[in-house]
Amino acid sequence: MTKPIIAIIPGDCTGIGPEQTARILSDRRGRDVARLVYVGDKRVLDMGMKQAKVDVACNWIKTPAEADWSDEAHVPAIDLGNIDPALFPPGLSSADSGRLTGDTLAAAIEFAKAGQIDGLTFAPLNKQALHKGGWHFPDEHKMFAHLLNFKGLFSEMNVLDNQWMTRATSHVSLREAVEQISVDRICDSLRLSHDTMVMAGIEKPRIAVAALNPHAGEGGLFGREEIEILAPAIKKMADEGINCKGPFPCDTIYIKAFAGDYDSVLSMYHDQGQIATKLKGFNKGVTITAGLDIVFTTPAHGTAFDIVGKGIADIGAYEAAIRLAARVAARKKASGTATASPKHLAAADIA
Amino acid sequence: MTKPIIAIIPGDCTGIGPEQTARILSDRRGRDVARLVYVGDKRVLDMGMKQAKVDVACNWIKTPAEADWSDEAHVPAIDLGNIDPALFPPGLSSADSGRLTGDTLAAAIEFAKAGQIDGLTFAPLNKQALHKGGWHFPDEHKMFAHLLNFKGLFSEMNVLDNQWMTRATSHVSLREAVEQISVDRICDSLRLSHDTMVMAGIEKPRIAVAALNPHAGEGGLFGREEIEILAPAIKKMADEGINCKGPFPCDTIYIKAFAGDYDSVLSMYHDQGQIATKLKGFNKGVTITAGLDIVFTTPAHGTAFDIVGKGIADIGAYEAAIRLAARVAARKKASGTATASPKHLAAADIA
Repeated sequence: MTKPIIAIIPGDCTGIGPEQTARILSDRRGRDVARLVYVGDKRVLDMGMKQAKVDVACNWIKTPAEADWSDEAHVPAIDLGNIDPALFPPGLSSADSGRLTGDTLAAAIEFAKAGQIDGLTFAPLNKQALHKGGWHFPDEHKMFAHLLNFKGLFSEMNVLDNQWMTRATSHVSLREAVEQISVDRICDSLRLSHDTMVMAGIEKPRIAVAALNPHAGEGGLFGREEIEILAPAIKKMADEGINCKGPFPCDTIYIKAFAGDYDSVLSMYHDQGQIATKLKGFNKGVTITAGLDIVFTTPAHGTAFDIVGKGIADIGAYEAAIRLAARVAARKKASGTATASPKHLAAADIA
Repeated sequence: MTKPIIAIIPGDCTGIGPEQTARILSDRRGRDVARLVYVGDKRVLDMGMKQAKVDVACNWIKTPAEADWSDEAHVPAIDLGNIDPALFPPGLSSADSGRLTGDTLAAAIEFAKAGQIDGLTFAPLNKQALHKGGWHFPDEHKMFAHLLNFKGLFSEMNVLDNQWMTRATSHVSLREAVEQISVDRICDSLRLSHDTMVMAGIEKPRIAVAALNPHAGEGGLFGREEIEILAPAIKKMADEGINCKGPFPCDTIYIKAFAGDYDSVLSMYHDQGQIATKLKGFNKGVTITAGLDIVFTTPAHGTAFDIVGKGIADIGAYEAAIRLAARVAARKKASGTATASPKHLAAADIA
């Protein structure tokens, strides 16, 4: 089977992305599972090589379709010619750099839409710069969905080792999150989690559902959502063959999942999952955009402005992001599914 | 200065409380900072001594007022004669044992109301048994307030090492918690946290306030409570001299506090704080009921049914609970404040 083609994007050039990208390519990380093609500005990669004190031999081409994959000695690379890193001091947030970083991602997405790449792994973005630069989305996942003109359900998932965290609601007020909790939303979220994990090679993912209310509602005393919404939704999905359980009091379920009792926790709201995952060090893990037609992964850590240019940035999470993208993309190719839409996958994978 | 008198209560006799209590008294833990008086059934302490393989020489008396504190060789002890532990198999929850455990606490509270003790430290309760036994309160703190006929503001605080965690809302649905957030409530909670920590000897406690909404509301995009309620309340309390800051995004503020940047985090709702503290191992810490006329402390861990009777239960948290009760009670005595009501203390301690 041919390896999937993953575009490697250097992220915001003011951060550690360029030097990490140079090291990833120089060390041949992930090349055993994927065919990597650099998409970005040549000068950004050159700067990254200098910072990381490594050399990457590239074949500079115009599109991924031109890549000569038989040439193992060179990395196929596309020079977008859009970013002169000399204009942006390292370690300083810049709206212009954010705008151009978004442009680079958009260019790579065009290659994906044309069927020339199977997935994207991008080095850290500066979310604030992206926003200030004119990419007005609450997060990059919504930006990707917009650029792909994707209308279905998608969600960020956070992955560390074998733990997959996701949530039923996200960047809305807590009041609105409570309003958004419904049987349909829980079911869709469970299908999306399940299908994405299956796509990543977990055969029968064990999913725990966190309760919305304290003590999982204490039998209805502290809220009735567990009785009227969560329990029926979980039962419905269990009946469809998804290995999901709950709702569980959320102040202990993450501890149990992290101990290995579950592969995944579905959180009801942003901070419920984020408090647990950030305390657990998920910034050392990978973020995947689940549900879109194209797989997107990125190391969960940030641009690390304090160590930019020192050549000491760790590339473990970046490599893990490439490997995850490759795994999902390979399964997508193998199963012949053009998209990861839950409904579509459900028939193939839940059996 | 005479040491405060702290009543030692063995907790639910089906758990590890009796053996912990026996070891605490036998090892003379906390006797350097407090005068301890056992309040419970004699047979429960006898059982605890057997389980822990220790001996405690007691002076059996009727009330704490009868204690002879010059007799260092004996522990003054009150036999309530209400619980025959032979009737309750260790490691099994029992409604009757729960009811009687509540009775024991109520009896100790009567001594407190009569001015014969300055505080209570109790070994682990079985909350479910207490409830099934007829003590129908959402938690023991509300039970204590009821028995003290206390109408003011009080709250559970969780303490580990030098970290103090508390919350503005507690055992209500998440929807109701959002409704309950108000300037007055935040101000009262900050005063209560501040005053309790000052009572425990922290001169100028640094308090961080967790935001209600994700990303602290992202400038109003994800909810306006931070702008309209939290920020004004924090400013008001800072103007009154409390060292409080925020609101901070809650998925990182606990990490910062645990790293030592703050002494305390005020959470907006139950699970926000509980997810963080349980992951951090606050079950090795102490729970204090803040705000009541009398100080109550308890080890934060549970009855540990799996190790009951083996004599291996750790007493570190129990000893820490005694020390904290003694510290607060001593300051209350010294400052001549009969109560820890925030308004009252504010005048004395914020200056």
